[in-house]
Amino acid sequence: MEHIFSYHHLREFTREVFIHMGCSLEHAALASEVLVSADLRGIDSHGIARLSGYVRLWEAKRINARPDIRVVHETPSTAVIDGDAGLGLVVAPFAMEIAMQKAAAVGTGWVSVKNSNHFGIAGYHAMMALERDMIGMAMTNASPLVAPTFSTERMLGTNPIAVAIPAKEQPAFVADFATTTAANGKLEILQRKNEEAPYGWIQDKEGHPSKNPHELKDGGALLPLGGDREHGSHKGYCLGAIVDIFSAVLSGANYGPWAPPFVSFLPLSPDPVGEGLGHFFGAMRVDAFRPAEEFKANMDTWIGRFRAAEPVTGKKVLIPGDPEREMHHERLENGIPVIAPVVKDMQEVAAKFNLNF
Amino acid sequence: MEHIFSYHHLREFTREVFIHMGCSLEHAALASEVLVSADLRGIDSHGIARLSGYVRLWEAKRINARPDIRVVHETPSTAVIDGDAGLGLVVAPFAMEIAMQKAAAVGTGWVSVKNSNHFGIAGYHAMMALERDMIGMAMTNASPLVAPTFSTERMLGTNPIAVAIPAKEQPAFVADFATTTAANGKLEILQRKNEEAPYGWIQDKEGHPSKNPHELKDGGALLPLGGDREHGSHKGYCLGAIVDIFSAVLSGANYGPWAPPFVSFLPLSPDPVGEGLGHFFGAMRVDAFRPAEEFKANMDTWIGRFRAAEPVTGKKVLIPGDPEREMHHERLENGIPVIAPVVKDMQEVAAKFNLNF
Repeated sequence: MEHIFSYHHLREFTREVFIHMGCSLEHAALASEVLVSADLRGIDSHGIARLSGYVRLWEAKRINARPDIRVVHETPSTAVIDGDAGLGLVVAPFAMEIAMQKAAAVGTGWVSVKNSNHFGIAGYHAMMALERDMIGMAMTNASPLVAPTFSTERMLGTNPIAVAIPAKEQPAFVADFATTTAANGKLEILQRKNEEAPYGWIQDKEGHPSKNPHELKDGGALLPLGGDREHGSHKGYCLGAIVDIFSAVLSGANYGPWAPPFVSFLPLSPDPVGEGLGHFFGAMRVDAFRPAEEFKANMDTWIGRFRAAEPVTGKKVLIPGDPEREMHHERLENGIPVIAPVVKDMQEVAAKFNLNF
Repeated sequence: MEHIFSYHHLREFTREVFIHMGCSLEHAALASEVLVSADLRGIDSHGIARLSGYVRLWEAKRINARPDIRVVHETPSTAVIDGDAGLGLVVAPFAMEIAMQKAAAVGTGWVSVKNSNHFGIAGYHAMMALERDMIGMAMTNASPLVAPTFSTERMLGTNPIAVAIPAKEQPAFVADFATTTAANGKLEILQRKNEEAPYGWIQDKEGHPSKNPHELKDGGALLPLGGDREHGSHKGYCLGAIVDIFSAVLSGANYGPWAPPFVSFLPLSPDPVGEGLGHFFGAMRVDAFRPAEEFKANMDTWIGRFRAAEPVTGKKVLIPGDPEREMHHERLENGIPVIAPVVKDMQEVAAKFNLNF
């Protein structure tokens, strides 16, 4: 059972909720734009489906609705930001803006963030760079759900990486992916439908391959991109580890198994190694390397050539960002389908704040 | 059949070969150190096994033994370098040095390189940053052997990524991996032994899964990390594409299917989109983010905690760089095993230059 809502409706409702949590008007507008951009792009697991989770974190006093987000250390090309336990949805654009200002000044900017919370989809933040003719990058650590190769222990989050690269006539190249075989959101879909997962997505508590999407409740774990050692899971483990270190060890946030869980019913670590969750952002001015028009014309050639690559019969070769961009247009026009459990969730949130959904 | 040679012997022979190709003493010493570091670290496909390939590229006038490597564009945190068709083995350390100088000055340095050739193992260059308390990064594009998801065409190289991160008491974190399920070198080993490859490494010319390690000769392709769509090959495709764009579109080198082949018997593209092969390097001073001692102490905690992660029965959780470091110590002490076909190759190279092997 799905209900269709307009983008405007979901965005406005979300904005109201953030205002009722105590956010400033500016922060509520930004946070709702970032959150619902996930629904627009078809990444349903990271959009309004998470709104009730943010509310519960706020109720548990793990989210500060009035954060004093500030730069605590910097050089001409770098900064560390303390998110003051604010919504990642507003801390991240603040940090990305600093990265872009540094890039404008010295060619590139790199910002590591501590004391933050879940920041929505990485792609939103990376894409902020596009209109300034910059390459944007965003990554974050997250609740530990992923076992390193040869381990049974959940040590890393699904730790996504987003890279947005501008082109000229072609739409931008936008990669945005979890460093696991499958994002947690895909597993949640299988859980709801009670369908099996392919081998390579999850393991049971002893580290054996499993098809049971509920395995994580019994001590199982998500697997790094690659799935098993023979298929390169050590590479996915490397990627997740790099995201964790750039986001949290560089900034002074909690890393690895100490990363704070998104769900408020799980306790925080009693012996934290840092503050809150960590993110990492990068911005590179393309004209810090070659004239922007020249770079973007070559990106058009790159994209055109890859789009024209010989396809497998019946298939189409895609450019990173194609499916999400098409979904964005489609949903902006025709509305966003929301499954019944999420509608119920929204109604409960609405009741809590005396709002209508 | 394997023969054991000392590191010193292989290094000295390689140095002599580069001198006989016309390299300066300085370049020959550096190139041989970079090349044989692959053998020391156990990445046999990228060490002296490739020496005859470099010689053939030089004979085909695709490698310039006396390059004028120079910065052609720069900002405080970036540079583009023209390798003047030199050995990537010397162009890459030059570029990494520039990246580190920029990092010393403004916090980070990012260098894209055009008009280069194969640069050995990415890890060598990334690790240059460690002794200066910097995080080092190195990537390169390469001969097109990899089909994007849903394509039958070879559009990307195995495009490796290396990231080296310093620690305090613990050895450094050093990730160095191809963005394919399996590096081409692993396929070469199966080819020599006439053994089957696991599914997920290669496809046949129509894009069907294949176990035949000789499939590339019949129009097949290597697969991006993930193997197939269901296991996240679109993420491996994204990674390979990002490496290609950072290395070659930013610098003005050849990208995608235009990347020049390593084997001299394949013709260069008649309509190049840039100059030579491309690389990308990064250096980030850790104290551009937080005090170096604090960062490195936290890396010790990170590494110690991951090493202690609960293992799958009978296995051991590794830190990226562990196997290569152990191999380095082992081979430095006990010598480097070289398989018979490579010994024969070396003897032919030796005869060509009137040297002994």
